Amino acid sequence: MNDLPKRVEIHEEGPREGFQIEPPGFSLEDRARLVEALAGAGLAQIQVASFVNPVRVPQMADAAELFARIRKVEGVRYTALWLNEKGFERARSVPQVDIDGALYFYTSDAFSQMNNGASAEEHNRKQIDWIRRYHACGIKVDTAYVMTAFGCHFAGEISEQQLAQTLDLIRAVETEGEVHLERLYLADTVGWANPLSVQRRVELVRRFFPHVRVGMHLHDTRGAGMANALAALQCGVDLFDASVAGLGGCPFSGHAAGGAAGNICTEDLVFMCHEMGIETGVDLEHLIGAAKFAEQLIGRRLEGRLMHSGSLAAYRRQ
Amino acid sequence: MNDLPKRVEIHEEGPREGFQIEPPGFSLEDRARLVEALAGAGLAQIQVASFVNPVRVPQMADAAELFARIRKVEGVRYTALWLNEKGFERARSVPQVDIDGALYFYTSDAFSQMNNGASAEEHNRKQIDWIRRYHACGIKVDTAYVMTAFGCHFAGEISEQQLAQTLDLIRAVETEGEVHLERLYLADTVGWANPLSVQRRVELVRRFFPHVRVGMHLHDTRGAGMANALAALQCGVDLFDASVAGLGGCPFSGHAAGGAAGNICTEDLVFMCHEMGIETGVDLEHLIGAAKFAEQLIGRRLEGRLMHSGSLAAYRRQ
Repeated sequence: MNDLPKRVEIHEEGPREGFQIEPPGFSLEDRARLVEALAGAGLAQIQVASFVNPVRVPQMADAAELFARIRKVEGVRYTALWLNEKGFERARSVPQVDIDGALYFYTSDAFSQMNNGASAEEHNRKQIDWIRRYHACGIKVDTAYVMTAFGCHFAGEISEQQLAQTLDLIRAVETEGEVHLERLYLADTVGWANPLSVQRRVELVRRFFPHVRVGMHLHDTRGAGMANALAALQCGVDLFDASVAGLGGCPFSGHAAGGAAGNICTEDLVFMCHEMGIETGVDLEHLIGAAKFAEQLIGRRLEGRLMHSGSLAAYRRQ
Repeated sequence: MNDLPKRVEIHEEGPREGFQIEPPGFSLEDRARLVEALAGAGLAQIQVASFVNPVRVPQMADAAELFARIRKVEGVRYTALWLNEKGFERARSVPQVDIDGALYFYTSDAFSQMNNGASAEEHNRKQIDWIRRYHACGIKVDTAYVMTAFGCHFAGEISEQQLAQTLDLIRAVETEGEVHLERLYLADTVGWANPLSVQRRVELVRRFFPHVRVGMHLHDTRGAGMANALAALQCGVDLFDASVAGLGGCPFSGHAAGGAAGNICTEDLVFMCHEMGIETGVDLEHLIGAAKFAEQLIGRRLEGRLMHSGSLAAYRRQ
């Protein structure tokens, strides 16, 4: 495990992941308090909400109001998600949003058709337009995501060859768009990754992009989420998306029936990192407090483990 | 990950772990059906029940009747747990029990005092008596467990030096008792392990016992259970205790308040192994069926992930 990073950066996604799948009606005040608790715990990047179709996702219709309500902490980035130009324009009109110029690439035609109404290649080539749009607004473009980089419930397994084709196209877009990617995330959107495939695909990304920082967006759909995170850490991966309390899971509908599983749980990941001597910049006890607050808001037991068992700090102090 | 084993053996503990912490009253018929479903899924070693004080653990008072009711499958071992001579004699009187001559060693005086009413060293030396007792009954002694091999909520962190002292004593007992240990399990009884400590301690065991097969008894108390399993697999560990559906967790009481977290979840472990090309001898779809039956019996959502999301088989067949 010699390649373990000294420090990892975590992008907290709970406030968006969690509340977009719950019924609408959570108060702005409570959701703002959760974001503030996460920032207070030391998380330096928090995805607050998405600017998406309010008819399809009414839970996020009040994204602008939520951003406006948060008491911000200096040095913390409060990010948002959008899927199209309209969403981006809405996000850009909210001064509190920290705009990331991230590009999204698809490996699977079927998944891209569903999300974007276009084939993967069509959608991927359109990322050039996004680069121009971001540049026109003075927004730096340095991050790319590969969606369903391991497999997809519509297209099945994504082979390493398919991933390589997507990476090849990303490289072409990078050249044509005159950007320099600093971060490239592999997303295991629906839980197809295993520790071996994580390591092989991280290595593949590094062959295409020797200087990029590789990141992982992992979901704990089938129980291997934390083992996949470990496999990535062992390759020196130091960028992770995660979700406080494991928010985002939908316990009341099977995945096959449309339910989604949450991201890997932020405080469980922070605990594992700290136990292995990897810094996160996060105060674990504060973060557990935020996870408990999230559970209290949602009103049912959430998937995180550490929040229910407690950390080891109290036992070590004895 | 070159040291990954080709095949792992899993000791299923759900029927004991799960029902010992639930309120009494589950029918013998249902519990026998669960054991039968697990054997039907290909699990070759199943811990059915414990022979312990029926006043303290009334859920296991009917252990003998449960064993008698199971329709056994050829080649499957149906094991039991006991903590003292009286329990052993009860287990031995039940012809359906497959008796394991396992020795239990403690690293922590506090934990040993609580479980055994004796210091760790006193308890550990008494294992010689157990060897004699087992030998007198014609039972082979080839397995040892190190309890709380990583840490303990009473004694705090167990250092590698403390573990080494315990291993040294196990070696002395092995010599004095004239047994040859073939399997040595490290138990992370209350969730102190991390992937680095797993790897270091497996290596430590191998320095003391170069020819022993190392096993892991892991609990997913703090979310690192599967990552710890991966770390062990990477060292070539091929013996795991696990619990179907993650049975054994107690969601209604915090760990600090006396609640316990379940073993790592059998079907999640089997899934991860299969995805990495490691054989288990288990039919995953049958095992998921058994997990769902366990959840139906318990009557609340259990911690396993795969049982809720489904495996990848259906998507691969498309």
